[in-house]
Amino acid sequence: MAIFSRSGVRLGNLIKKTSRLCYVSQHTAVNAPQYVTAGCEEPTGPILRTSIPGPESQKLTQELDQIQNAGSVQFFVDYAKSQGNYITDVDGNVLLDLFTQIASIPIGYNHPNLLQVMSQPENLSTFINRPALAVFPPKDWVRHLKNALLSVAPPGMHQVQTMACGACSIEHGQKAMFITHQRKKRGGLPPTQEELTSCLYNKEPGCPDLTVLSFSGAFHGRTMGALGITHSKWIHKLDFPTPDWPMATFPKLKYPLHENERENMEIENRSLDEVRERIEEYNKRGRPVVGCCIEPIQAEGGDNFASPRFFQELQKICKENEVVLLMDEVQTGCGSTGKFWAHEHFDLPEAPDIVAFSKKMLTGGFYYKEDLRPKEAFRIFNTWVGDSSKVLLLEAVINTIKKYNLLDNVKETGQYLQNGLHEMEKKFPHCVSNVRGLGTFCSVDFPDAAFRDGVIMKLRNRGVHAGACGDRSMRFRPTLIFQKHHADIFFDAFEKTLQESSQ
Amino acid sequence: MAIFSRSGVRLGNLIKKTSRLCYVSQHTAVNAPQYVTAGCEEPTGPILRTSIPGPESQKLTQELDQIQNAGSVQFFVDYAKSQGNYITDVDGNVLLDLFTQIASIPIGYNHPNLLQVMSQPENLSTFINRPALAVFPPKDWVRHLKNALLSVAPPGMHQVQTMACGACSIEHGQKAMFITHQRKKRGGLPPTQEELTSCLYNKEPGCPDLTVLSFSGAFHGRTMGALGITHSKWIHKLDFPTPDWPMATFPKLKYPLHENERENMEIENRSLDEVRERIEEYNKRGRPVVGCCIEPIQAEGGDNFASPRFFQELQKICKENEVVLLMDEVQTGCGSTGKFWAHEHFDLPEAPDIVAFSKKMLTGGFYYKEDLRPKEAFRIFNTWVGDSSKVLLLEAVINTIKKYNLLDNVKETGQYLQNGLHEMEKKFPHCVSNVRGLGTFCSVDFPDAAFRDGVIMKLRNRGVHAGACGDRSMRFRPTLIFQKHHADIFFDAFEKTLQESSQ
Repeated sequence: MAIFSRSGVRLGNLIKKTSRLCYVSQHTAVNAPQYVTAGCEEPTGPILRTSIPGPESQKLTQELDQIQNAGSVQFFVDYAKSQGNYITDVDGNVLLDLFTQIASIPIGYNHPNLLQVMSQPENLSTFINRPALAVFPPKDWVRHLKNALLSVAPPGMHQVQTMACGACSIEHGQKAMFITHQRKKRGGLPPTQEELTSCLYNKEPGCPDLTVLSFSGAFHGRTMGALGITHSKWIHKLDFPTPDWPMATFPKLKYPLHENERENMEIENRSLDEVRERIEEYNKRGRPVVGCCIEPIQAEGGDNFASPRFFQELQKICKENEVVLLMDEVQTGCGSTGKFWAHEHFDLPEAPDIVAFSKKMLTGGFYYKEDLRPKEAFRIFNTWVGDSSKVLLLEAVINTIKKYNLLDNVKETGQYLQNGLHEMEKKFPHCVSNVRGLGTFCSVDFPDAAFRDGVIMKLRNRGVHAGACGDRSMRFRPTLIFQKHHADIFFDAFEKTLQESSQ
Repeated sequence: MAIFSRSGVRLGNLIKKTSRLCYVSQHTAVNAPQYVTAGCEEPTGPILRTSIPGPESQKLTQELDQIQNAGSVQFFVDYAKSQGNYITDVDGNVLLDLFTQIASIPIGYNHPNLLQVMSQPENLSTFINRPALAVFPPKDWVRHLKNALLSVAPPGMHQVQTMACGACSIEHGQKAMFITHQRKKRGGLPPTQEELTSCLYNKEPGCPDLTVLSFSGAFHGRTMGALGITHSKWIHKLDFPTPDWPMATFPKLKYPLHENERENMEIENRSLDEVRERIEEYNKRGRPVVGCCIEPIQAEGGDNFASPRFFQELQKICKENEVVLLMDEVQTGCGSTGKFWAHEHFDLPEAPDIVAFSKKMLTGGFYYKEDLRPKEAFRIFNTWVGDSSKVLLLEAVINTIKKYNLLDNVKETGQYLQNGLHEMEKKFPHCVSNVRGLGTFCSVDFPDAAFRDGVIMKLRNRGVHAGACGDRSMRFRPTLIFQKHHADIFFDAFEKTLQESSQ
């Protein structure tokens, strides 16, 4: 089956062979220039037809609200017409997308390499016959796990478990911690009959009172175990019973970093002291801390960064206390920091014990060290344990990342983006502060939430779609094929917005 | 794009137009008769080439075991070659599938109506651009929700929330209970500042100590909240901290039902008394019971049935105590009991408050009454909240169920299957007992687990693939297109196996 662009033109006829990552192609069918970015055809810029949300979006939102609370809807999307870095809404507005479905579109909308997966007849059965992967895996499963997930495994990690989404990746990562802790405690002996029976009633000793340490501002998901280690916003937490587990303060660094080195080191040391104290305190209370979950960059909580030294020290504390370190890379993984995994920036002496992923990886799951591998079957298990069709698509994503050196692209564009943001910070010092980032995973702060929300709304009506995080931050989560000329479109809209807002 | 059968023949040319659900088609390409069942081409019976797992399955299992514990793998599958009720393994064995990916294949493998979805170019973008559905829904989303999920909503239910899988459907159903309970407690007032702050630290009053009642033998999933109400097997539970929530005994009825009416009523009454006692006890302890989760038929726990009267009384108790009743239809939903939802067999005076689904529905999610609808946006939320491509496929499944009257088919074949099982029970009274079921959702018991496992293994090597549940039960979970002639193939293999096993 041929691949068609939104204008109905065969992409196979359109795309010139070239080694350049981005170039302009004369789009003969509509007689307008089109960019081709990392093999993906794109419009040359945003197109605005209505204010956003437009009338069609508003109508559909009202209809959806008859079926469920639709208060979180921003606008309805025409996904078939979205291309590369551009999202097209149902009112015909074409926006440069810096938010990408809450950071979960890796190589742009409708990338030809993904369409290509769907055009192979031998792949179709993967999409319509969803297997119970841990019991009846498909014949190509091992090959796809190797080509997709293992080919990008964090250095030093060779075991991987797929899951459906981020929250259940965290939940099952926690279970791997608990299983490992209890196995070691038993010293190789099998569980007692009392353990086997009591666990069915949620009672000790079968269900021991183990705890997991997390950080203020953390976000790890919305199921009970993942929510127990989440502390970012009340909207996620209010009214829900959650386990009484230890929490330490995540460092809140001061910017610019080079002017605040000593103070930031003290801030981080206080956090590390708290980690030690919490572990000691909970261990003493007979509620041992068996795991520690942390994001390499706190995203939902406001794009909070800590130094490599902080993570190195944290790993040291964990090892000293036999605490399993889980790095939650659900939002940071898959290249947007300029390395495939954000924790690779930390020069850790060895890999974290568990690395969880989802979002841009298309499948949820987690890597783990051999020590965390359950000895019994069915311990980390559910009906589907993920979705082989997502791994098939991930393989195409990873091949595209490699083919177009997209990690290098992210580094280069990320530097360009951050430089431009620093210029804006200088130009609008009362509006923009705390410019920070790794690769294109970056963010800025505004005076308050209302100012930030106003900026995001004005940007959108200038054709640029960005996302909020934390109390007063705007986060950049573009695709991996985001280019300097896309950044220029953003800067143009940003400058106009800030001029307007600061008047 | 044309649809091809496994032998490369265009199905469009092959299938005769007929109103009959099942007929024999002369398959000219391979010159062998083929059944066509509910529009789906099938082989005429099992084909055995090796013992199972065969050499290729064993090799792949060893390879997978290098990457993760592969102890739960039964055999590897060639999904492209599987058809209708028949699953084809990587060694070329073709098995009649009564287990269907742990009860999650609704209308058979590679049904042409599902392939048809993939052949529509306008559908492809749904598979490769996964939206954040609660924020940026696709333009056809409302229509698909209506055509797929709302068109089969349980009577009296009009609200629906999609989710990725069964466990998170239960978790978010529980959250709807908690939100509703606290909203009523506040009497319309907004949450206090203390609540908003304390919830970030997992502390009261923001995170109140609310509880959910469940039943012995229940299975609701493997994340912390879902696992807290699961009590079926130690392998799911051991080593994991779980909330101290109330549990009542699920009735264990005696068979045959008509000979044990009085005793079964007493058994159920004792369970209902326990429910009342647990609610009173936990309420008195200041740990109010706000919800009750129950399966209409306990599946994983051993296919345990209770009477309609039991569920009617349970609903009454819940209403009297302002306890939200969640019916977990993850395994029972989507037609296999002969009604679309198993709880429709109970003649409840009104719908349950929440009905959760997944598996054969292809998407997870839950229906809920208006009262359970959160007032604020983002309360029941995550990045993906399901997957629009699964809802697209579900729409084709539901159209197929309607077109071929598959609920009637399930009733008819189910009666045939149960009659045959009763005959086997009479013929092999020392082997087979407790024949029970609704539609094709039925099961039998054997003397013990070892005997049961032996029967399943022998059946498999006679070309019939069945599943275990509970301590000593075998469960039937065929597709909705399972026919009498498939049941005959099973009975033939079953009788031979029982003759062999009872010698």
